[in-house]
Amino acid sequence: MLRLYDYLESGNGYKVRLLLHQLGIPFERIELDILKGETRTPAFLARNPNGRIPTLELEDGTCLAESNAILWYLAEGTRYLPEERLPRSQVLQWMFFEQYSHEPNIATLRFWTHAGFLAERSALVPDKRKWGRAALDVMEGHLRGRPFFAAERYSIADIALYAYTHVADEGGFDLAPYPAIRAWLARVASQSGHVPITRG
Amino acid sequence: MLRLYDYLESGNGYKVRLLLHQLGIPFERIELDILKGETRTPAFLARNPNGRIPTLELEDGTCLAESNAILWYLAEGTRYLPEERLPRSQVLQWMFFEQYSHEPNIATLRFWTHAGFLAERSALVPDKRKWGRAALDVMEGHLRGRPFFAAERYSIADIALYAYTHVADEGGFDLAPYPAIRAWLARVASQSGHVPITRG
Repeated sequence: MLRLYDYLESGNGYKVRLLLHQLGIPFERIELDILKGETRTPAFLARNPNGRIPTLELEDGTCLAESNAILWYLAEGTRYLPEERLPRSQVLQWMFFEQYSHEPNIATLRFWTHAGFLAERSALVPDKRKWGRAALDVMEGHLRGRPFFAAERYSIADIALYAYTHVADEGGFDLAPYPAIRAWLARVASQSGHVPITRG
Repeated sequence: MLRLYDYLESGNGYKVRLLLHQLGIPFERIELDILKGETRTPAFLARNPNGRIPTLELEDGTCLAESNAILWYLAEGTRYLPEERLPRSQVLQWMFFEQYSHEPNIATLRFWTHAGFLAERSALVPDKRKWGRAALDVMEGHLRGRPFFAAERYSIADIALYAYTHVADEGGFDLAPYPAIRAWLARVASQSGHVPITRG
């Protein structure tokens, strides 16, 4: 059985859980508390030397890291990843956008809020707020007149961007000025097999 | 002909240039000075609403953004991208590692040095130095006993990580403590069709 090293609050972990549930693939979930250093133990670093969840352990013991690479691995050959070269590359474009322009701002402010780090890191907050809003602006523009991010259908690009966008308010981002994003969030949440971020 | 919106100093741009040269694909290069706001004009934002180079314009006018998604698009069906599901996902794992754990630290300190931003952003430097070294540590460990990052052969994972690693010294990173990385840099530079970052 697949084994997922995970942290329930993590949107990156949720991406993988959500797709596994939608694909109907059973998995064993190992919860690691990142705030207690459980991803920096020798045993875990042997699985992922970068010390991060999610990490997926395959049945032969091979470990795959990076949430969006895991999504790609699981989605290959399914309806969650298009088959043609250009749409596949556009799925990747949005997944790299998510990890570079979106997650480091929107997910980080949520994490700092939950973990109580906002005050000590207050000097860094305005830039993260500015660039988080810039990422939302790019998403809003793209979603005007489009149902999903790539290939005109629900794909792992949507899963990757949904994970932290739907809880952006927990990091202080107000989605009221983003009607296209809010309509897209509802479309994603209505997909078959959808589960909430609180579901292990 | 393919058209590449680019900035010669950019390692992200270099990734795409390097692969295009190795594939022998002719392209037109449009230089945009990111320091003069040339990636934030209405004309360019119509091509890439995220306002970043590299952006690849295909012959039908479609634009593809994100350096590593462009690499994937160009490498599909060539020897620079393996065909099997797990090695392909491992290529992606390293490309996401590059954009999340490597580039924001190692490339950013090089850019701040080149652009003269180091002094005004000095409070941010120690963390970027620490996390840049952590990324190099992960690479060094992985490359001990392996010739390349994935699939035991040169791939776009190596191109993605080579781009900013081989000029890490320009951001103040000393590669002397990283013998496996230095041997890998030499292997990458010896690949057929290799060109330097200064080659447009």
